[in-house]
Amino acid sequence: MAIAVYPGSFDPVTLGHMDIIERSAHMVDRLIVGVLQNNSKTPLFSVEERVKMLEDVTSYLPNVEVRSFGGLLVDFVHQCQADVIVRGLRAITDFEYELQMAQTNRVIAPDIDTIFLTTNLKYSYLSSSIVKEIAGYQGDISEFLHPVIAEKVRERLANK
Amino acid sequence: MAIAVYPGSFDPVTLGHMDIIERSAHMVDRLIVGVLQNNSKTPLFSVEERVKMLEDVTSYLPNVEVRSFGGLLVDFVHQCQADVIVRGLRAITDFEYELQMAQTNRVIAPDIDTIFLTTNLKYSYLSSSIVKEIAGYQGDISEFLHPVIAEKVRERLANK
Amino acid sequence: MAIAVYPGSFDPVTLGHMDIIERSAHMVDRLIVGVLQNNSKTPLFSVEERVKMLEDVTSYLPNVEVRSFGGLLVDFVHQCQADVIVRGLRAITDFEYELQMAQTNRVIAPDIDTIFLTTNLKYSYLSSSIVKEIAGYQGDISEFLHPVIAEKVRERLANK
Amino acid sequence: MAIAVYPGSFDPVTLGHMDIIERSAHMVDRLIVGVLQNNSKTPLFSVEERVKMLEDVTSYLPNVEVRSFGGLLVDFVHQCQADVIVRGLRAITDFEYELQMAQTNRVIAPDIDTIFLTTNLKYSYLSSSIVKEIAGYQGDISEFLHPVIAEKVRERLANK
Amino acid sequence: MAIAVYPGSFDPVTLGHMDIIERSAHMVDRLIVGVLQNNSKTPLFSVEERVKMLEDVTSYLPNVEVRSFGGLLVDFVHQCQADVIVRGLRAITDFEYELQMAQTNRVIAPDIDTIFLTTNLKYSYLSSSIVKEIAGYQGDISEFLHPVIAEKVRERLANK
Amino acid sequence: MAIAVYPGSFDPVTLGHMDIIERSAHMVDRLIVGVLQNNSKTPLFSVEERVKMLEDVTSYLPNVEVRSFGGLLVDFVHQCQADVIVRGLRAITDFEYELQMAQTNRVIAPDIDTIFLTTNLKYSYLSSSIVKEIAGYQGDISEFLHPVIAEKVRERLANK
Repeated sequence: MAIAVYPGSFDPVTLGHMDIIERSAHMVDRLIVGVLQNNSKTPLFSVEERVKMLEDVTSYLPNVEVRSFGGLLVDFVHQCQADVIVRGLRAITDFEYELQMAQTNRVIAPDIDTIFLTTNLKYSYLSSSIVKEIAGYQGDISEFLHPVIAEKVRERLANK
Repeated sequence: MAIAVYPGSFDPVTLGHMDIIERSAHMVDRLIVGVLQNNSKTPLFSVEERVKMLEDVTSYLPNVEVRSFGGLLVDFVHQCQADVIVRGLRAITDFEYELQMAQTNRVIAPDIDTIFLTTNLKYSYLSSSIVKEIAGYQGDISEFLHPVIAEKVRERLANK
Repeated sequence: MAIAVYPGSFDPVTLGHMDIIERSAHMVDRLIVGVLQNNSKTPLFSVEERVKMLEDVTSYLPNVEVRSFGGLLVDFVHQCQADVIVRGLRAITDFEYELQMAQTNRVIAPDIDTIFLTTNLKYSYLSSSIVKEIAGYQGDISEFLHPVIAEKVRERLANK
Repeated sequence: MAIAVYPGSFDPVTLGHMDIIERSAHMVDRLIVGVLQNNSKTPLFSVEERVKMLEDVTSYLPNVEVRSFGGLLVDFVHQCQADVIVRGLRAITDFEYELQMAQTNRVIAPDIDTIFLTTNLKYSYLSSSIVKEIAGYQGDISEFLHPVIAEKVRERLANK
Repeated sequence: MAIAVYPGSFDPVTLGHMDIIERSAHMVDRLIVGVLQNNSKTPLFSVEERVKMLEDVTSYLPNVEVRSFGGLLVDFVHQCQADVIVRGLRAITDFEYELQMAQTNRVIAPDIDTIFLTTNLKYSYLSSSIVKEIAGYQGDISEFLHPVIAEKVRERLANK
Repeated sequence: MAIAVYPGSFDPVTLGHMDIIERSAHMVDRLIVGVLQNNSKTPLFSVEERVKMLEDVTSYLPNVEVRSFGGLLVDFVHQCQADVIVRGLRAITDFEYELQMAQTNRVIAPDIDTIFLTTNLKYSYLSSSIVKEIAGYQGDISEFLHPVIAEKVRERLANK
C-alpha cells in the first residue's frame, strides 16, 4: 500500500478527520489528503484556505501531503499514482453511502480499492456541518476542533 | 424530571407529535413544547401560528406550555430551566440523526440529557412534510391531523 | 395481479430500473411505468423525453406501457385501474423511505398495495444521480446504462 | 403471477401472517402457504398441527392452499410449479436476512423471484416467538392471534 | 415520573449499565434496577450475586433499589407500582429489538411506557458477553468494569 | 502496512473470502490468514483441514500465509507481529458487529487498527453457513466456492 488518498471537504477539518489521517498515515508509505473543490456548495473556507489549514495541523506527519481536486475522485487517485482510497465510517447512513461510492468507483476504476477505518468513538457523532451550526450560535466548539482551526472558524463567522 | 423540553418544527403538529406530547406530559412535572424558528426554510405556518395551533390542541394538558425558540436547542433548554430533552423515534434514519444530536448536545451541555419515546405504531410513518405533500394534491389528511389543524392546512393551501 | 404501476423519475432509466421492469412485467398481466413530472427539480431530460427513452428500451416487452404523471401516486394508480405499486429496494435508506411511502399510501388508498423486488446485486449501487455525476466529468457510464440511453446522456451533457 | 408460495414456520400463525396471506392471495391466482418442517428446532405445534391450524383460519380464501415442506425452499417452489416467493418485511434486521436469502435463491434458482410486502403497522412488532413467550407467562395474547389459534396455544401450554 | 424500572441481566454489570443507572436515577423519584432470572441461560453469576453486586456499586445513589424478577417484565413493573421502563440504546440492532419489545409491552400493558437513553459513547461498544469473552482469555477488562466487579469476574473465571 | 491479519472461521472458505484475501494481499507486504479454532462450535472441517484448504486456494499469492489460532484475536495479531486486522463488510448487521469488535479491540490493544474492505457485490449475499445449508440439501454450490473446495464439501457431507 504505497500511496493512499483520503478525500473530503474538510470545511473545516475536525478532530475526527485528524484521527483518521494520523491512523492511516501510520499504515501507508504516503498519504495524500484530497480537498474537494465542490462548486455547487458555498463553503465557509475556500479550497486554498482548507488546504493551508490541513497542512498546518498535519505538519507533524512527514508522509502526509495535502492537495485539492475537482472532478471524479478516481481520476484524482490516478493522478496521485495511488491505488487505495481511505474513508472513515461513523454510522449506518454513512455506511450505505460509502458502500455505494466504493462499489461505483470499483466499476469505473477496477485498479483502485477503498479501505474503511472506524471513527474514534470520541468523535463518532462529529461532522463539519454540526460544528459550523454550533459555532454560528456562539456555542463552544473547542472539543471538536484543533485550537488553530477553532480560532479560524470563530474569526470567519465573526466577520460574516 | 421536573421540567422537560420537546422541540420540533411542528409545521404543522401531527397526531404523532400529539401522542408524544401526551405521553411525556404524563411523565414529567412540566413539559415545554419548543417551536423552532428556522429562518432558512419557508414554513407553511409562521412560528406564531404554530405556537397558537399547538396551544389549541394541547389545552387539555395542564402541565404543557408552548414557546418558540431560535439558536441552539441547549441554550433554550437552559433558559427553560429544564434538564431533559424529549424526542420521538420513528425509524432507523431518525435514530442515527437523533443519536448524533443527543451526543453532540451532551458534549456542549453535559447537564442536559435526552430521552427517547418510540412513536405510536399507528403514526410511525407520519411526518409533517408528507402530510403537506398529500394536502397539496387535495389528498385526504384527516387520518394524520387533529380536525382543527387539518382545517387550517386546507385553508392555507387553498389561499396559496 | 392484473395491472401494476412502477413509478419513478427515470432521469435517465438505468440498467437497475430495466431489471425491475423486466422481472415485474414477467409477473403481471400489464405493467405501467409511471414517469413522475416533478416541477420542483430541474431534470436532465424532459418528461416527454424520458417517456420516449423508456418506450425505446422496453419495446421488447409487450405488456409494458409508459405514461407520465403528476400529483399523488395513488391517484395515478387509480386512473390506471391498477391495484399494485412495484418498487425496487437497494439498501437500508431506501427501505426506510419506501416503507414510509407504502404505509402512507395504504392509509390514503387502502385498495392499493405495494410489492418490493430486490435490486439485482450487479446494479445495487446504482442511481440516476450517480450516473449523471460520473457522466458530467466524462467518466465511463457504459456499465450502467443501455447503449441508446448512454448515448443520449453524453449528447445532452455535451450540449450543456 | 399464476402461483406464489408464502413460506414460514407459523408456530403459531399470527395476525401478522394472516394479513400477508390475505393481501397476497388477493394479488395472485393461487397462493400456497408452505409450512417449514425444521427438524433442528422443537416447535410448540407439529407440522401437521400447524398445517391444520392454517387451513382453519384461511378457509375463507378460496385460492389459498396449505402444504408442509422440508429441504430447500426453491425445490419446494419448483414442486408447486410456482415462480414467486412472497415474504413479509417487518424491520431492518428482517430486511438484511430476507435480502440475503432472496439473492441466494436467485443464484441457485434463477427462474424464481421474491416479492416483499410490508407488514401491517399494527402487527409490525409481532413474532411467533414473542407471542409464545408472553403466553408462557400467562400474558394476554388475544391481540396477536386469531381466537381459534389463541385457544390452541393456551391449551398446549397448559398441558406442558 | 415517580418510579421507573431499569431491567437487564447484568451478568455482570458494566460501566455502560452504571452510566444509564446514574443518569436515569437523576431524572426520577425512584429507580428500581430489575435483575432478570433467566432459567434457560447459564449465567456467570447467580441472580442473588448479581443483585448484591449491583447494590454494592449503586450504594452511592440513595433513590436506587435492586430487585430480581422472573416472568413478564410488565408484570414486574406493575408489582413495583412503576409506570416507566428505562432502556439504554447502543446500536441499530439494539434499536430494532428494543422497539419491538417496547411496542409489544404497550399492547399488553398500555399504562406502562418505555423511555430510551443513548449509551455514553465511551461505552457504546460494550456488552457483558464481550467482557466475559475477553476475561475468559485473561484479557484486560479494567476499562469496562468497576474495580469491585472486575475482581469478582476474575475470581469466578479462575475457579471455573 | 507491513503485516496484516485476516481472521475468520473459513468453514469453508468461500469466493467472497478469496476476493478479500486477494485484494488485501495486493495492499500489504504480508498477509496472514488466521483460522479461528472455536471449541464451542462443531465445524464441518477441522482447523487443520481448513488451514490446508486455504493454503491450496491461496498458493498463487506469494505474500499470503495461513495459520490457526485460539484465544483473543489481538493476542494472535501481536504474535504475528502485525498491526492491522483486515475484515470484509457485507451488510448492516455485519457492520454493527464489526464496529463493536473493532472498537473493543482498540481499547484492549491500542497499537492494532482494523481496516474494512467492502465485499464484492457478486458475493455480498454469501456466507459459509448458507453454503453448507444449500449443500446439505444437495443444492448447487458451484457459484459460491472454488471447485476444489466445493468438491471437498460434497465429499464431507456425503460421508456424514
